[in-house]
Parts: sequence; C-alpha cells; structure tokens
Amino acid sequence: MFEYIRIMEIQAGPLLSKIEFPSDLKKIKKEDLVQLCNELRQFIIDSVSVNGGHFAASLGVVELTVALHYVYNTPYDKLVWDVGHQAYGHKILTGRRAQFHTNRKYKGLSGFPKMSESEYDAFGVGHSSTSISAALGMAIASKLKEEHNRMHVAIIGDGAMTAGLPFEALQHVGSSDTDILIILNDNNISIDPNVGSLKEYLTDITTSKTYNKARNDVWKILGKLPGGTFNQQVASKIEASLKGVVSKNSNLFEALGLRYFGQVDGHNILKLVEIFKDLKEIKGPKILHINTVKGKGFEKAEKDQTLWHAPGTFDKTTGVINKVIFDVPQPPKYQDVFGKTIIELAKANEKVMGVTPAMPSGCSMKYMIQEMPKRAFDVGICEQHAVTLSAGLATQGMKVFCNIYSSFMQRAYDQVIHDVAIQKLPVIFCLDRAGLVGDDGPTHHGVYDIAYMRCIPNMVIAAPMNEVELRNMMFTAQSDSNHSPYVIRYPRGEGVMSDWEKPFELIETGKGQVVKEGNDIAVLSIGHPGNFVVEACQKLENFDLDIAHYNMRFVKPIDEGLLHTIAQKFKQIITVEDGCIMGGFGSACLEFFATHQYKIEVTMLGIPDRLVEHGKPAELHKECGYDSDAIAMTIKNILLDKKNIMSTI
Amino acid sequence: MFEYIRIMEIQAGPLLSKIEFPSDLKKIKKEDLVQLCNELRQFIIDSVSVNGGHFAASLGVVELTVALHYVYNTPYDKLVWDVGHQAYGHKILTGRRAQFHTNRKYKGLSGFPKMSESEYDAFGVGHSSTSISAALGMAIASKLKEEHNRMHVAIIGDGAMTAGLPFEALQHVGSSDTDILIILNDNNISIDPNVGSLKEYLTDITTSKTYNKARNDVWKILGKLPGGTFNQQVASKIEASLKGVVSKNSNLFEALGLRYFGQVDGHNILKLVEIFKDLKEIKGPKILHINTVKGKGFEKAEKDQTLWHAPGTFDKTTGVINKVIFDVPQPPKYQDVFGKTIIELAKANEKVMGVTPAMPSGCSMKYMIQEMPKRAFDVGICEQHAVTLSAGLATQGMKVFCNIYSSFMQRAYDQVIHDVAIQKLPVIFCLDRAGLVGDDGPTHHGVYDIAYMRCIPNMVIAAPMNEVELRNMMFTAQSDSNHSPYVIRYPRGEGVMSDWEKPFELIETGKGQVVKEGNDIAVLSIGHPGNFVVEACQKLENFDLDIAHYNMRFVKPIDEGLLHTIAQKFKQIITVEDGCIMGGFGSACLEFFATHQYKIEVTMLGIPDRLVEHGKPAELHKECGYDSDAIAMTIKNILLDKKNIMSTI
Repeated sequence: MFEYIRIMEIQAGPLLSKIEFPSDLKKIKKEDLVQLCNELRQFIIDSVSVNGGHFAASLGVVELTVALHYVYNTPYDKLVWDVGHQAYGHKILTGRRAQFHTNRKYKGLSGFPKMSESEYDAFGVGHSSTSISAALGMAIASKLKEEHNRMHVAIIGDGAMTAGLPFEALQHVGSSDTDILIILNDNNISIDPNVGSLKEYLTDITTSKTYNKARNDVWKILGKLPGGTFNQQVASKIEASLKGVVSKNSNLFEALGLRYFGQVDGHNILKLVEIFKDLKEIKGPKILHINTVKGKGFEKAEKDQTLWHAPGTFDKTTGVINKVIFDVPQPPKYQDVFGKTIIELAKANEKVMGVTPAMPSGCSMKYMIQEMPKRAFDVGICEQHAVTLSAGLATQGMKVFCNIYSSFMQRAYDQVIHDVAIQKLPVIFCLDRAGLVGDDGPTHHGVYDIAYMRCIPNMVIAAPMNEVELRNMMFTAQSDSNHSPYVIRYPRGEGVMSDWEKPFELIETGKGQVVKEGNDIAVLSIGHPGNFVVEACQKLENFDLDIAHYNMRFVKPIDEGLLHTIAQKFKQIITVEDGCIMGGFGSACLEFFATHQYKIEVTMLGIPDRLVEHGKPAELHKECGYDSDAIAMTIKNILLDKKNIMSTI
Repeated sequence: MFEYIRIMEIQAGPLLSKIEFPSDLKKIKKEDLVQLCNELRQFIIDSVSVNGGHFAASLGVVELTVALHYVYNTPYDKLVWDVGHQAYGHKILTGRRAQFHTNRKYKGLSGFPKMSESEYDAFGVGHSSTSISAALGMAIASKLKEEHNRMHVAIIGDGAMTAGLPFEALQHVGSSDTDILIILNDNNISIDPNVGSLKEYLTDITTSKTYNKARNDVWKILGKLPGGTFNQQVASKIEASLKGVVSKNSNLFEALGLRYFGQVDGHNILKLVEIFKDLKEIKGPKILHINTVKGKGFEKAEKDQTLWHAPGTFDKTTGVINKVIFDVPQPPKYQDVFGKTIIELAKANEKVMGVTPAMPSGCSMKYMIQEMPKRAFDVGICEQHAVTLSAGLATQGMKVFCNIYSSFMQRAYDQVIHDVAIQKLPVIFCLDRAGLVGDDGPTHHGVYDIAYMRCIPNMVIAAPMNEVELRNMMFTAQSDSNHSPYVIRYPRGEGVMSDWEKPFELIETGKGQVVKEGNDIAVLSIGHPGNFVVEACQKLENFDLDIAHYNMRFVKPIDEGLLHTIAQKFKQIITVEDGCIMGGFGSACLEFFATHQYKIEVTMLGIPDRLVEHGKPAELHKECGYDSDAIAMTIKNILLDKKNIMSTI
C-alpha cells in the first residue's frame, strides 16, 4: 500500500497523463500497458477516496477497459457498458479525466455513461441488464447501413446476467447474423453476493472437463497463430473437429446460439489485448467469459466487496472509511427502520416474509435474511420474479414485504398489476429510494411511482412522514386484511427522529393527520416532504400568516373526509410531494375537488415534468422548488398577494 | 371428421357427463381415459365452434389436463396454468362444464383461470410467463407451513418460456429446496410461430444423442419399477452412474439446477399418467418436457395454428370460419391501417423499422415482416428486449415503430423510461389494444397506459380518432425530429372510415382539433371515443343544447392554446377517454386548469377506479359510462340542471 502514499493529489501518472482520448492510448507500447493499468487504477483510487462514488466495480475492469479502448476503434466501434458504475476508467480514458473530480457532483459528470455527455458513451445506463439488447440494436442498424467494419461490444456482469432481459436478448443474439461480442465479466457479485443457480452454473463451467479441455485446445492453437491475422477457415475447421466431442448443447450460451470463449483472466492485460484482436476477426455472435475481482488492487475492497461497492470517501492509505462524528444521537435512516421493524413484525406474525431483488444491504433486509433465512430471500436482479413470487406466497396467506427501490419497481410493473393488484393479493411493496435519490441521478430517482401506482385499482399508497409512521404503516399493512396490495414509499437516507422504537400503533388506512390547524391557507403534504412544510411554517413564524398543515399519509385511498373539511374551509391549497407532479398526489387532490365540484385554487409543488439530474437531495429539492424555502416563498406569495388585493379592495 | 357431425348440441359424452369435479374423474378406469380425452376434446370443439374463444391451445393440452387432474389431488395440489387460454379443459373438469357456454361472455365465465371463480384456479393469468414464479411462491409457503404432501405444478409453453421472467424464476427454482414440477409444453408456437434461439435449442435437445440415450435408459428402468412406488434411492443411483457420461451442464435446465425429464409425447394419456405418478415421488425441482400439437384433433387447426388460435365461431364439420357478410364496404380495423401504413412509410423512409414482441398477426406487422424481413422483427414474448432493442436501433438514427399491446407494454415499463425516454430516443410506440379490449377481460384491457406514460418526461402521447388520424400520426411521428419518444395508442378492432387510404398529412404535434363549435358546454375527447361524442351530439340534436366538441389528439404535450381558449369560453367541461380516469387525460386537463387558475366545472368520463371484467366493448363502455348514451345523458344532466337553475332565477 506504500505507493498510495506518494500520490496525495489527484494527479495522473506519467503514462496516463498523456492520454486524453483513446487515440492517445493507442500510441502506448504494448509493454507499457501494465504500467498504464496501474496508473489508471491509482487514479480511480485517488479520485474516489476524496470525492466518493462507486469504487470496487471500476477497479475490477481496469485491464478490460484499457484493452477494449486499445484494440477497438471507439467511438466508431460501440462499447455498451452494463449498469455503468463500472465505467469510471472508460470515462477517464475518453476525454473526461480533467473533469473527473466533478463526478456525481451537482452539475458535474454523471456517475454513469450518458450519451449526452460523450460520444464515447454509446448508451446511457444506470439500471442493469440492458447492454445486450442495446448493442444488438446498434449492430442490426449497422448491418442495415452496411457499416460492416463497425464493431459492437456489450460488457455485462454475471449479476446483471441473472435478470430476464439479457436472456431475452441472448435468444435474439443467438439467432441473429450480427458479429456482436458480449463480454461476461464474471466477478461473482453484484452489490451483494449473487444468488441463484446461474451463479453456480458459471462456476461449474470451469469444472466441466471435457468441455474445457476442448476449449483450451482451441485457445492453444489460436495462441500459436500470428496475432491479428487469425484465419477464419482454420477456426471453423477446429470447431468442426470439436463437434464430435463436445455437443453444441454442452454450454448454456452455445445452446442459445453464441460461440463461447473463455474463461480468461480479466486482469491479464496483454492476454486481453491478444484475445480482442483475434475476436475482432471472428464473425457471428459470440461471448467471452472473463474472470475479474471486484475491487482488484485495493486490498480492503477485494475482501469486503459489498462495503466497498460505493464506500463514500476514505483514507486511501489506511482504508478507513470516513464517517462524520456527531455530538448528539442522529436519527436513523429509513432503511434501518425498515430492517429492524420487519424482524419485529416477523417475530410476532409467522406469516410475515421478506423478498428483495438484489438490494438486501441497500434496503436493510439483510438482517432478516441472516436471522430468518427461510422467511426472507434475496432473489438476485430479478424484480419481475420478486413480485410474482410474492404474489404466489400471498395466495397461501403469507404477508410478504417485497422491498424494491422505486425506480427498480418500474421493472416489475406488469407483475404488480397482473399478478398482485388484479387478484387483490396482500403483498406489501416497500418502495425504498422514493423521491430524488441524489448522486445517482435520473436513472435512479424514484419520481414516477405515485403516478404509476395510483392508477391501479385496489392499490393502497402510503408514505410516512417520519420513522414512527414508517413503522406503524408496516405494522398496519400486515394486519389490515381489508386493504391490499399496500405500497409504502419512503426516501433514501436520514429520517427525523432519533427516538423511534416505540410500540406499534395502527394507522387507519386512508386517514390523514392534522399537523397544524390554520385559517388562511392549507398545505397538504405526502410523506417525508411534510417535514419541509413544518420547516417552512417555522420560517414564516414572524409573518402574520395562519397556515394549516395536513400530513395526508395516503395518496390512495385518499382521505375524502379530511379533504371535504379542507375544501369547505379553504380557498387556497398547496400540495407538496417528492414525486412527479404530473399524475401524482396533487393531481389526486384535483380529481377529488373536481368530482365534488369544489372551486379551489390549488398550487402543486413537486418534481416538474423534466429530467432532474444528479446532485445532493437538498440541492435538487431546491432546484425543483419544494424545499422549505420554496414552500415558504409559495405560501408568502399566495397569501401576501391575496392580502394585498384584499387591502386594496 | 364424421364423428363431429353426430353431436350438434353442446352435450358432454357419456364419460364426461359424469364428471363434475376431479373427484369424479378419479373414479374413471385407466383404460377409459382415452375415450374421456376424446369426449373432452369434442366438448371443447362443440363449445368454441358456437361460442368462440381460444381454441387450438386447449385442444393441445387435453391429455395433459386429464392426466394432471387424474393423478394430482386438486385443488389441494396446486396447478398453475401459464397464460391460461389453454385451460378450457381444466375449467370443464372442475365444476364449470354446465356454465361453459358463458365462457368469455359478459357476466359469464372468464376465458382465463381466475382465483375468484374457482378454488381449482390456483393463480389468475392472462399474460404469459408468470407460472413458475407463482408456483414457486406457493411451494415455498407450503414448505414453511410444513404441508409436505402438497404438490405444485406449473404448466408453461415453450413460447412463454422465452420471456425473461421464467428465466429469473428458473434460477431461483434451481437453487431452492422445493419439489416443484415444471411442465414445459413444447408445441413450437405461441400465437405466431416462436422465434429465437431457445426454440432451436428445444428442438436440438432431441437430437443430442448421448444425452437422450442416457435419459432413455433412466426411463426404461423407471418404467420397469412398480408404478407409484418408485424408489428414490434407485433413482439417485442411476443418476449418479450417468454423471460420468452426461455432464450436468449438458442441458440448459440441468445447468440451472433442475432435473430434466423428457421428451414425452403429450398426447399419450396413459404414459402421462404413469409419469406423473412417478414424478410425484421424486424430490427436488424438476422439469418435464412434453411435446404436443397445438390444435390436436381438429385437422384445420393443426395445419394453421395461428388462424385457429382464437378463430371466432366456425362450422365444426367443414372447418369454415363464420364471417359476417355486409352489403356495404366496412371500415378497416385500426390494425390493418397500422400494417399497411408502416409499409408505405418504410418504402419512403429507409430509416423506418418495425419491432413487435410476439404480436405480428395481432398488430398486423406480419405484412412488413414478410415484405422487409431485415427491417421488421418479431422478437418473441420479450417485451423488455423489444423496447431496449428499439432504443439501440434508435441511437443509430433508425425510426423504430415498436408495436406492443397496451397491457403488455406494462411489461417493459422501465425500458421505456430508462432506455428510451431518459435518452429522448426517437422510438415510436404503437400501443395496440388500448382501452377496453372486450372478451379477454381485466388482464388484457389497455386501461393504464395514458396514466403510466403521461408522467414520463419527453413523452408524446397521441391517440387517433379514426383511421386517417392514425395514418397521419404515424407519418408525423417518423418525420418529427423535435419530439420523441412518441406513443400512439389506439383500440382493437373496427374503425369508422372505409375510405382511409389518403395522402399523408402532418398533424402538428400537440395540437388538437375543433370537431364542432358550440357555446353551452365543451366536450374534450381523446382518441376513438371522440366518435362516441359525435354520436352523443347527434342524439341530442332535438334538444336546444349548443355543444362544442374538441378532439384533443394529444394527451401530451396537451394543446395549451386550445385549452386556454376553451377555459376562457366555457364554465362546464366534460372529458372523455377510454383509459383510467385516475391520472389520465381528464386529470391532465385538471392540472392545466389548476396551473392557470381557471375555475371550471369538469366532469371526467372514462374507466373508473375498479377492475372492469370481460364482455363486448360496447357492453363495457356502457357499464363504465362513456358510450354515446352516457355522454349524451351527462351533457343533458349538466345543461338542463343549469338551464333549470337559470330559469328559476
């Protein structure tokens, strides 16, 4: 670890500092590539240690990244990075080294590949498992345009490969006449360790002796041929001679019509360069299986890959992750509340179960999975399966908490409608990361869930304003047999109460709460932004404004009794939500007022109808106009306008 | 075919007529099962020929259905039928023979398994590919409840197996310790013939000699053991001895951790009964691969399986499908307009392409696929892949028409947001079957798309009122480079114009149309229901009511100029849409009026916030209150109320 000490500032090594674009990389001598990889790895460590961000994934693909840009003619050739948090090296080598310190900062570089950021980013990502479909689309388009020399490469992890979408795509790839290359970057982990039988299978491939023996022979012969001039006919011959020994069905990928190459050490840069040169000459759809170590080159990250997926800032010498120390006890994260509460509920109610698709650490279901492994599962990056599995469990009377981030729930939308809601099954969807998530940006913001869930019949949609409400909503959801399915949405991160572990109380489904009585104007909030309203009211204390605040708690069923009371009392209403305004909570209020012919002026605050980029949540709330300042300003403008008008009458 | 002539009424044969429930079936002697299958097949032919419905799929699984209910202890044991239109035999054998003539009729039996209809329907279906996840959920719940004697069987077709969800589920099944049985009903066809490399693979399994030799040996040994008392230890021994010969990776399903059995003739009832008895005794997750013929036993259906998927009514003797003969030319289906127009556009613009997931006949893209096979694809039951593939094509400047039924688009929601909309790619989504589809019922109604698409930034949402508008919207979508992505939604079935093949005209994106000027009230419609408004106005001609009608054409961007004009002129507005009211088009109007502080009474007509069952579209429009009568009544009530009030003032 000593060499890390020498470089204290984010400064590129001698080779890396000469590379602005892949054209510069191509000038590097082959024998210098190992050093370049070391420098690139060091640059990533230096940057992330002080600026934060995703860490272990990019370290694992340093050699792969260098080899790809060394051999392929980017951006003409298309590299499609799956998920994309592995693409830091790619960004650094493609014109963005100088800006890399702005990575994931407000108005800075995106943490993911993004088409509008660079022509080298062939496809925008953030969610996993899209790369094969996207690259195949590009390859088919190139074929049609007769750009026969354009190469298409999808780089996908073994975790991302477990999702349904790549399987759909592989079937099409396997029956297509494209020359696409899929690189399966097998590191045996997503954010959490991978699960399921595909993982076992990928390990097993190695042990299938007949198969690998034959494969190795091919590789040996390939190795002896002059590099770059690999003879297509020779390859076909070899392949043909293998047919007798190795059935074409002996490998899952070959079964689906791809030529399989591997496994290869993904940290051997020279070998990778040779292989890519050869693969460029081989026609038809093919998959290269490489093995890498997530966190490669940073010892602690190699050892605890989940912790070092996105560790925040850290001391790159000692490997100590920085933590802010507070004098007073801090409120917990909503995630902690979920993680502890589900165990309490499961202990009291044997029907309570937990399902999450590859987010056990992020959503804190890992504690229940550890404590009750028969009753809580991580099903891998399989959101669709998570939901339909939960539906199946619910048919047998189980009360399943299915925890999925809001933006990932988009991947199981039909399963929510078709398998759960139409059958009115008692699945409880906990939508973590609802609202603006911050640094991950538009692919991860949980913006649309209120709108896309609200239109589904039978659905209950609740949003807690604080930790105790989250707890009690979870308690209510598993005990309320009249209402189902049940959505509980809450944001990433810190709550507002340090003293939250109180006895459970039922929250009547569909009933809101008066936070503050008032007479001039009513502010109706849903979920966590209710706290911004409280702050706004405090900021306006010195003004002569009599503000009422209602924490509505439920978007659906909406509290009609309370809305009648409000509508009869107020002519001015503000709605506040951390979801899209279009079709959201405010819109639900408008529908109620229209249906009952109330004529009220409603001002809707929330996320506007445009993409919100990345940044700290507070920066984004401000930008979108629903932080406490914006709420206070809105109230003041409406009421002072009105009072001015009244005073002039 | 002669035996079909003898039975002219829907009357069960002598054996079938004694069976109300599976308990009766179990009393049938084994040697009579072949006859029973013939009677069941005949009953299905008799029923569907006069009542319509899905046909070929249920004929293909007659023996499978009888064998399952003969061996398994339903409803205690759980049979989960994938898709469900294959479940007619299942319905007939489980208490619903007498009501079967109401199948798919308004207020009658559902065309799909439905939990609320029968305890024998373990899981509601309609969309494909859900069965493995659902059955696994049930199996895990049973395990937890220590119901060790309860069996769980998922029956899934090879078409449904191509989707991503079953692949996600198989990985979990393969690593689970459940005894679940998956029956892969391989008939090599969905509605249209299957595509992709999985199809090739399933065919190839048969030809893999080593593998099948070994498998056959197992089966021979199994066959010699006394039925029902199959010895687990013997099986393990045999399996172990095979390991040396056949790699565990030699079969895709075994690669994923399931024991694979097959292939078996799915029309050999006696063999199936024996196999199920044996499989009941074999622990662990397993898959049985059976081969069936879709349409089995009805010659014409066997020969043209796509036509006979759901042929309508027909003469069961001659096999002539009934068609209503009209004296005057009838308007085309919207589907025909799509199918012909996309070819015209593709001929004029080389960037136009077509993608559809397994709906080439239903949406009429088959004509383009036939004529331009390099530019139009059926990608199988892979909605997610269809959308992300389209996104990949669009990055290369292609103008892709991605045609997916509205309710199936729910299966690719994240791909629409993450891969298309966030990147503002010019994909054109044609949402066929939008609105209430009729006989297929709640799983297939295209109810939610306006709500779930409207909340996504960048999205254009258009809906044509007639054939010419569909044509021109398609023309506009592929030529408008300022707006993308573009959704065009339209209903199943007949349009309103017989003379529709006119020269293309641009329809300005985001601009509505005045259908009829008026002064008393404004009716704002979107899409096809605009025709109901026209009819309503005609019905009210004799009343002294001055009705304005606006065909808004676009839900988003909504025509703000027109809305300002309307809002300034009218105090009473009615919105009409064939989508859910909650979050839909009417809601978009409310948001506009609230934002601009117009105080208008708005009455929203459309699909209410509850499940709408099956029935003819006209019956359902009436039930939901937006057919022409309901619109006329609403107008009358509002205006006459108002006039009465005014006259009393």
